[in-house]
This record gives sequence, C-alpha cells and structure tokens, in this order.
Amino acid sequence: MIAEDDIIARHFAPLAGPGAMSLRDDAAILQAPAGRDLVITKDMLVAGVHFFADDPPDAIARKALRVNLSDLAAKGAEPLGFLLGLALPKGIDEGWIGSFARGLGADARLHGCPLMGGDTVKTGGPLALSITAFGSVPAGAAVVRTGARPGQALLASGTIGDAALGLRIRLEPDAAWVQALPEAARAFLLDRYLHPQPRLDLRDAVLRHAAAAMDISDGLIGDAVKLGHAPHAPADRAWPVIELGLLPLSDAARAALALDATLIETIATGGDDYELLISVDPAQAEAICAAASATPAGTPLTRIGALEAGDSPRLIGPDGRPAAFTRLKFEHTF
Amino acid sequence: MIAEDDIIARHFAPLAGPGAMSLRDDAAILQAPAGRDLVITKDMLVAGVHFFADDPPDAIARKALRVNLSDLAAKGAEPLGFLLGLALPKGIDEGWIGSFARGLGADARLHGCPLMGGDTVKTGGPLALSITAFGSVPAGAAVVRTGARPGQALLASGTIGDAALGLRIRLEPDAAWVQALPEAARAFLLDRYLHPQPRLDLRDAVLRHAAAAMDISDGLIGDAVKLGHAPHAPADRAWPVIELGLLPLSDAARAALALDATLIETIATGGDDYELLISVDPAQAEAICAAASATPAGTPLTRIGALEAGDSPRLIGPDGRPAAFTRLKFEHTF
Repeated sequence: MIAEDDIIARHFAPLAGPGAMSLRDDAAILQAPAGRDLVITKDMLVAGVHFFADDPPDAIARKALRVNLSDLAAKGAEPLGFLLGLALPKGIDEGWIGSFARGLGADARLHGCPLMGGDTVKTGGPLALSITAFGSVPAGAAVVRTGARPGQALLASGTIGDAALGLRIRLEPDAAWVQALPEAARAFLLDRYLHPQPRLDLRDAVLRHAAAAMDISDGLIGDAVKLGHAPHAPADRAWPVIELGLLPLSDAARAALALDATLIETIATGGDDYELLISVDPAQAEAICAAASATPAGTPLTRIGALEAGDSPRLIGPDGRPAAFTRLKFEHTF
Repeated sequence: MIAEDDIIARHFAPLAGPGAMSLRDDAAILQAPAGRDLVITKDMLVAGVHFFADDPPDAIARKALRVNLSDLAAKGAEPLGFLLGLALPKGIDEGWIGSFARGLGADARLHGCPLMGGDTVKTGGPLALSITAFGSVPAGAAVVRTGARPGQALLASGTIGDAALGLRIRLEPDAAWVQALPEAARAFLLDRYLHPQPRLDLRDAVLRHAAAAMDISDGLIGDAVKLGHAPHAPADRAWPVIELGLLPLSDAARAALALDATLIETIATGGDDYELLISVDPAQAEAICAAASATPAGTPLTRIGALEAGDSPRLIGPDGRPAAFTRLKFEHTF
C-alpha cells in the first residue's frame, strides 16, 4: 500500500511548476502573461479505449500530455502548465507510478509545460486519467474552428495514417500485410501510435496564417467534416473535398499501402494522428507552408484538398475520379 | 447508441458559457478579470469510490462540480467556469445523460460557473469524471494552505460529520443507531452526503481574515494535520489541537451521537464534509465569525481548536481531558 501523500511527494512534486505550491494545496494560481489570452483544454483517456493497459507507463503519461499539447498547438498557443487527474486501479505498484511520473516529467520539460496540481484517486476499474492543459496566445489571436469557410485550402501537417496503421498492427499482428511489412516500418508505425507528436513548432505559422485549425484525433475525413461545420451560421459552413493522392504519407505507410491498397481507408479515417488540420485562404497557402518549413523541426504542411459549399464530403482518388469509403468518419458512440 | 456529437449538442451545449465556443472546439478561451489572479483546481471522482453508481445522475453531477467549487471557496475565489471530463460506461442511456446534464446546468447557474468545454469518452469500467474549475481572486490575495502557523485559531464552517454519518447510513442501514434515528434525521444526513454545499458565500470573509484555508474532504482531523504541515519551512509547521466538545454538530448528528457515543470518531475523521477549515490569527477570530454571520446565507464559523508547535495532533474530549481515536486520519492508499 502506498499513501497518496507519499506518491505526490515522491513522484509528482518534483514536476511542479511555479504557482503549483509544490502540490501541497488543492488549487494552484495561474497568471496569463500580460496581453495574452489563456487557452484551456482537457482530454480524458481510459485504458482499453485510448491506450493499452500494458503500454509502458511512461508512454501512457506522454500520450496523455501530448494529446492536450496537440490541442494547444491547433490554437497557436504556447504551453503554460497542466493539471493531472489520475484514477489508479487497485494493486498498481510504485514502480509503475515512478515510471509514469518520469515520462510525464520528461515531456513536461521538453515542452515547457510544468505540472500545476491535480488529484490522485482509486478506481475499481481501468486506469483513467484526465489532463487539463493551459496555454496562452496574444489577446484575441487564438485560432479557432469557426474560421472555416468554403473556398479555403485544407492543409495537414506531418504524415497522416501512421498511428491508425500502428494500432492495426497491434490488433492484427497476423494480418498478411503486417507480416510482409519490413520490421523497421512496423516499429515506426507502432511508435507513431504510442508517441504522438504535438506540433507546437507550427504555432507561429498557425497564428500568422490559419483561418481555422484543429488537431486530427478522430480520423482525417471525419475531423475535416467537423472543421467545415464549425461555423455558427449555416451559410458559412463548408464540406471538405479531400484528394487522396495528395495525402502526406510516411515511407512506412506507403509500404503498407503497396501491400494492401484498402489500407487507404484506415489512413484517411483512422484516429490518433495528432497532426494539425488547417484551413487557409488559398492566397496564404504558400506562405504558411514556407513558415512551417522554416521552423527548427521543419514539420511540413501539405495541401490535401479544400473546403467547398456543396452538400456532402467528397473524396477524389489518385486517378482524379471520385472515391468512396465504407465509412467516412470515426464517430464516438455510447 | 448515441453519438458523442449529439450528446454534446443536445445536453451539454446549452450549458456553455462565453469563450466556450458552444463546445464546438477542442479548447476554450478564458480571461481572468483585470487585476485578478486565476485559481485552478481539479478533482477526479469514480463510481464506487466517491459516489454510488446508482446515485441519481443529477446528484453525481452536482457533487462533482461542488467539490471543485469547495476548493475555490477555500482560496477565496469567485467561480469563472469549468471543464468536464466524462468517461461513460457502456450502455448508459440518454435519459441518464440528460438528467446528469440538467443537474450540472442547474448548479452551474446557481453558482455562476458555466461549462467551458471538456471531453466525453467511453470506459469499460465504472463511470469516472473529472472537473477542472476556474476562479479568480484579487491579484496576490489567494488564501493558501502555507499561511498556517503555530498559535493560530482553527475554525470550521457549517456542521461537521454529517456526510460521513450519511455514508454510514448508506453502508450499514441495519445498524442499531441507524434504526433508532428519526426518519427526518436520517434523510438530512443522507442528503448531506449526496449534496455537499460549497461555502462560496464565505469567500470574502476568507479573503479578508484567513491566514490559511482548505476544504475538509478527507476528514477534519487528518485535514487539520495537512493544514498545519503545509508551510515549506519546518519551523513554521504546526500540529492541530482539536476540542471535540466545540465541534459544530447538526441536530441530526447530535441525535446520532446520543444513540452511539463512538460515532464521534466518524464525525471527526470521516470524509466528505466539504466545509471550510480556516486558521486565523487569534485577534481575527471574532471578526471572521462576524463576517460569516453577515453573509446572506449566514453560514456560521465555529472555533474548534488551534494550531500549536508540539509534535503530534492532540484531541481534547468534552470533559477537557485528552482523548484518543483508533485512527486519526483518512489516508488514501493504493
């Protein structure tokens, strides 16, 4: 048995940032820098739904923080800190907690996003955790979804579909395409599922050029539909047209697709990309791609289609003809 | 099956506050009023641990919000809004969600604390939820635990022990004292467990007079030890001395205690009070009690003991002699 106070003192207090009062309080004080707005976001993750219970604890911690940092990146926000809510199953040992806290601390330092506080409780069910992350943007400058309009170009960061392919490798290790895939490609895709990369390096490019942005967590096509439909006024709403031949793919995803052409559906509709989906005025497309390339990480932005008035999402195949999938979005249902 | 987007649009979007972008985004914008600091707090609750899975859904929602508002009250903070993370077990129906959202909305309006965003996910385990609440205090004025010092008076708001007795009534309905308790007293105690009362009406009194404050969630005595030990410098730390005869008790708790004198231990160490524990310079004790009585709710503050240098917590019985309990605090262990 480990006491909650000891867990906090030994494993989480070393991660605490200024204002967190060494986690010895129920609340923390946060000040947005002068002239900046605070951006807040919260994601909840449950073992068996958002990750595997036997994933390495440091990877679970990193993923939980990174999916929130990804939301901040989509707003153009610079991280300020985060709160951690952790529901631990019975019998979890201190080694697990130590590894979890070390992974969390490493990522918190990497992204300049210290722990501000939180709550650790017991659960009779699977591990569940919730992170609330805070960031800041110049006052009034946050990039929100409601800026989407018909006629804008759609861009995606990095490469699409890797994590969804990695998840399929976890779930169907004996599938023919998985068996035929080179080991290095398998490892790359598995890692892309386990360790999403929040695109914080793109935040200045997003702030300067984007009309609307979101991170791709539930599959590119479904999320593009969400982005197009975010505006409040029906006349402002748009549908995405996605050119499948333009999707930025990693070498590993290309290798998988060469083995099984139907994987394009997993690539375009699977979840967990945590890349940015950005809509821009077509006149800004070149500038935002150049701004992305100029960042230290040089994460590429690729034009993948557009938003149009229309009345349904459209897919265009690599041959330039309309394409159709069996499902267009990954929808969470209860 | 209910789609997540429909749940949000039908049940949670009506609760959204300004900056929440009608919950159509992954993040929200929050601005602390000019000249004020932002106070942030997060609690996590799991069915079977913090509430009963078959509690009324509106009561679960209210409790989840109120335990966070209670943390804000202890800092002297005025609520600004909250984020909701909700992990729903399979098969939960829309009636449940509707009732949950109505309870949440009623409390959000009551306390001026609108929904700003959040995340709804599936879980294979029990219902889990996490609320992050935001409040504000005049810059630099937040009342924190680290202000505790030897020599200060300890005060408690409202009445102590009701919720812990209510929980025992739930767990041991056939106990002799439960059977002998008048129906109205049983109902009162059960309701105190189900519906904590965040003492936001005391926040001006806390801001003006308190040296340190926290809400009592894990039992009065254990929490008093935590308050005394919050200062960073060992020389500043203190131990509580609690006079059991001074504890403010409801009529129902008095009736229970008259039936079974050992219930004093449940009253003083049981959890879920969500009353405020405040330490003040003895010269301020009268003024803070007067300020509390002058609020519209008139929630009383009662002196229950003091902080002293010493080397362990002390209990004084109603007869003025040292008292001892079998356990001094409710400690969360894993």
